[in-house]
This record gives sequence, structure tokens and C-alpha cells, in this order.
Amino acid sequence: MEKIKVFKIGGNVVDNPERLEKFAVEFAAIKGHKVLIHGGGAIASRMQKSLGMEPVMIAGRRVTDGETLKIVTMVYAGWCNKNIVALLQKNGCNAVGLSGADGGAITAVKRAPVTVEGKEVDYGYVGDIMPDGVNAGFICSLLEAGMTPVFCAITCDGKGNLLNTNADTVASSIAVSLSGLARTDLVFCFEKDGVLLDKDNPLSLIEKISPEDFVRLKESGAVADGMLPKLENAFRAIECGVEQVVIKNSENIGNDRGTTLHR
Amino acid sequence: MEKIKVFKIGGNVVDNPERLEKFAVEFAAIKGHKVLIHGGGAIASRMQKSLGMEPVMIAGRRVTDGETLKIVTMVYAGWCNKNIVALLQKNGCNAVGLSGADGGAITAVKRAPVTVEGKEVDYGYVGDIMPDGVNAGFICSLLEAGMTPVFCAITCDGKGNLLNTNADTVASSIAVSLSGLARTDLVFCFEKDGVLLDKDNPLSLIEKISPEDFVRLKESGAVADGMLPKLENAFRAIECGVEQVVIKNSENIGNDRGTTLHR
Repeated sequence: MEKIKVFKIGGNVVDNPERLEKFAVEFAAIKGHKVLIHGGGAIASRMQKSLGMEPVMIAGRRVTDGETLKIVTMVYAGWCNKNIVALLQKNGCNAVGLSGADGGAITAVKRAPVTVEGKEVDYGYVGDIMPDGVNAGFICSLLEAGMTPVFCAITCDGKGNLLNTNADTVASSIAVSLSGLARTDLVFCFEKDGVLLDKDNPLSLIEKISPEDFVRLKESGAVADGMLPKLENAFRAIECGVEQVVIKNSENIGNDRGTTLHR
Repeated sequence: MEKIKVFKIGGNVVDNPERLEKFAVEFAAIKGHKVLIHGGGAIASRMQKSLGMEPVMIAGRRVTDGETLKIVTMVYAGWCNKNIVALLQKNGCNAVGLSGADGGAITAVKRAPVTVEGKEVDYGYVGDIMPDGVNAGFICSLLEAGMTPVFCAITCDGKGNLLNTNADTVASSIAVSLSGLARTDLVFCFEKDGVLLDKDNPLSLIEKISPEDFVRLKESGAVADGMLPKLENAFRAIECGVEQVVIKNSENIGNDRGTTLHR
């Protein structure tokens, strides 16, 4: 295989039928080998509330007790994943929806209690992907057979337990692992056009960021809040073998508009 | 491929952690190519009730409005399917969990309103599998790669819509379709040892039933109620190419005990 493109869409795309339909049409039209990873956090939170539970998030991550694991597995691996697959199939893309349990695709380890802002936090059934935890051979065999793997962010510990894993982390782990077998790009799709110098001004899009640029952007405070961990995660993926990481609007995947992070 | 065994487990097995764990151990140990189809109706009904809905069943089939489709997709394709896959992976079986949407595996058509007991019934998002609706080539490619496909009973119309389909029907459709490519057995696993002459006496197990025996059993009234449609469905599968259908206890899949329906 010459080249693989790994796309990630967030819950905001998955949760918006019009955006999702538009994304499915454009994603299906992309030629070559591709993988999709999706979130669904907002839908899971709504389902928790419908079932009388209050979602608990600490440092942006969901605390996942047994009942919450059941709900996120239902929402991510069931409703979101199968709907995305059905939409892609409708548009001529031979999608196969998977969790990390399927085909032993992604093996994770349950996170031990950690200290967050001075307090001990037990995230529960949350999984951190093992080094070499991604079964790149399995994913490649699907790609070579003309299929497009679509992953939700549910992983498995190989001992019969499902685990809730951050979807950005799933996407970058898959991209890093595939980069050992083929040139691999990672594309994060969300509701903005990319990294903006002024977050309220879409005209301030930064087209390219090198590691040196990133240091300067951090120092100047231009990149902060939610974008900071996203970019740190992206540059780690590049250090580990991914050719480039693109951050763009889910409505722009058919064109070049976006921010490209490169070596 | 020389031989394929298609197993179906009902909601009663899926809904009982001990039975399911025992089944997973024995299923994983079965040698050769195998496929698993599972139900999950009781869990779906409980989830409907937890969300304030009352399940509506007519002639044993679930009326599936939009909200019910969401729930059965979450329960069958999400929670049940991924837990079964995780259990099988734990036991060394390389399971891949699928719905009919994945890989275009099973294409169905939404059922038009039908007359049931003199009344018109719209079952909603319920799918009947199309003739040639099973993508046997896809399933065989997974088997040849050493994988064990695990199907929930959610199908897809190819136009972006998921549909709720009877799990027995999914199992027999898959078995019939695979029988065009290899000798195929179909094994229905439930909580009794097989077809009993006296339903309250486990010692009255009938070991073999031919089509002629079946006519006599129906006439005598010995086979009735829930077992009748199961056997009719089974003999149709045999007429359409399946080598034999076995009805047995989910706890007996490692041994010969059960009822074998043959030509």
C-alpha cells in the first residue's frame, strides 16, 4: 500500500444529521485507502441523562462506571457506528464498522487511578491503548480487500472487558501504527476551518505549522484551551511516523482548506 | 472451504452472563469455520422500559418505530455484540462483530404494512432480507482469513436506513447463502435440550426429525406454539441447501445432545 488517510470526526459532526450526511458524501468520494474514527460524546451524555444519570467529566474525560460503559458502548458501537456505516454504504463506500474488540483491533489497559489537579481520580472503565496495541495487519487486510474500517472509540483489554477510550487518541494510535506499513496522513475534522490565530475570526486561519512554529504559538498564547492538547497529540503522532496531520472543517474534506502540521 | 457451521443464540443466552460465558468458552473451542448470530430481545425490552417506552409486540415480532430502532441498534449492535466479541476474543476466538450494514453483509427491505389476525399492522423499521440479500463472499473472505463473524440482527436497506430483523431469520438466511459455497450446518441454541415430545420432560428429546416425521408431529399436536415456526423455518433452510439443522441447549454445543433435522 502506498498511502493511507486516517480521518477523525468528533461528536459535533456525528450529532448533526445534515453535517454527517454531507461528510458521508464527501468522505465516500475520497479515493484511495482510508480509515474513519468517530466520537459521539454529546449523544452519550444525552442518553445518560435520559436514563437518569448525570455525566461526570474530569479534565475533559468521562468517568466511566459500569453503567456508563454500557451506555457509551451502546451509543458509540451501536447507534453512531452503524448509522455512519449505513450512510457510507449508501454513498458507495464499502464501510465496515468496528470497535477495538473486533478482530483484536485495539488492545488497551484499564487506567489506574490518577492524580488530577491534586485529587485522586478513578476514571473507571477507561482504556489507554497499549504500545503495539493496534493490530495494523488486520486493518491493512481490510483496506487491501477494498473496505473502509470505521472505528468507534471503544477498546478491549483482551480479557473480556470493553473500555472507553478517547477518540482522538484512537485516531492517532491507528495512524501511528499504520505509518509503519504505508505513508499515513491523519486528518482531524471538526466544526472550524482549522487552527485560527484569532478564534473568532475565520479569516485568521494558519495554513501550516512546523514544530518550531508551534513552540512560538504556545509562547505567544495564541494557541490555548482545547486546541493545545489536540496539537500536542498531533505533533506526537508526527514524531512517531505520521507524515502530516491536517486539522480542518468536516465540510471541507473535499478541498485543501485547513491547517497542516508537518515535520 | 469444506464446511461451515452457523450458530444462533437467543436473547435468553445473551441475557444470562453465566450461560453466555460458558457458551463463549465452548464456542471458541469448536474447530473449523463458524459464524455466530445473536438475539437480545429481552435486553432491548428492558432498555425500552428504562427509557419510558412500552415494548409493542404483535405475533411475537417487535413493532419498531424510530425510537425503538435506535434502542435495538444500541442494544444489539452495541452492548450485546461487542460484549460477545470481547468474550470470544478472551477465549482465543478471533471474532469480528457485524451488523448487516457492515461490508454490505445483509440487505433487507422495509416491510410494508401487513394484515395480522384481521388487522393492518405497520411494523415500522422492520426488514425482510432480500433474495440474494446476504453477501456470502464477504462472510467467506472473513472466514478464510481465520476470523469468526458475529452478527446481530440489524440489517440495512442500502439506502442509509438500518432495519430490525428477526435473528432466527438472519441465521437461516446466512446459512442458506453460505450453503451455495460450502457444506453448511445451522445450529439453533436455546435453553432446552432440543425438540421434546413432552415439553415438561427433558427425557422426551427427539433425536432426529425428517420432513415426514415433522408432518406427523404437527398432525399429532406434539409440536406447537413457539417451536412450530422455528421448525418450519429450519426445514425451509434445509430445502434451500443447508445440510442439517440442529436444535440444542446452548450448554451442549460441545457434545452431540440435541435434535437434528435432516433431509
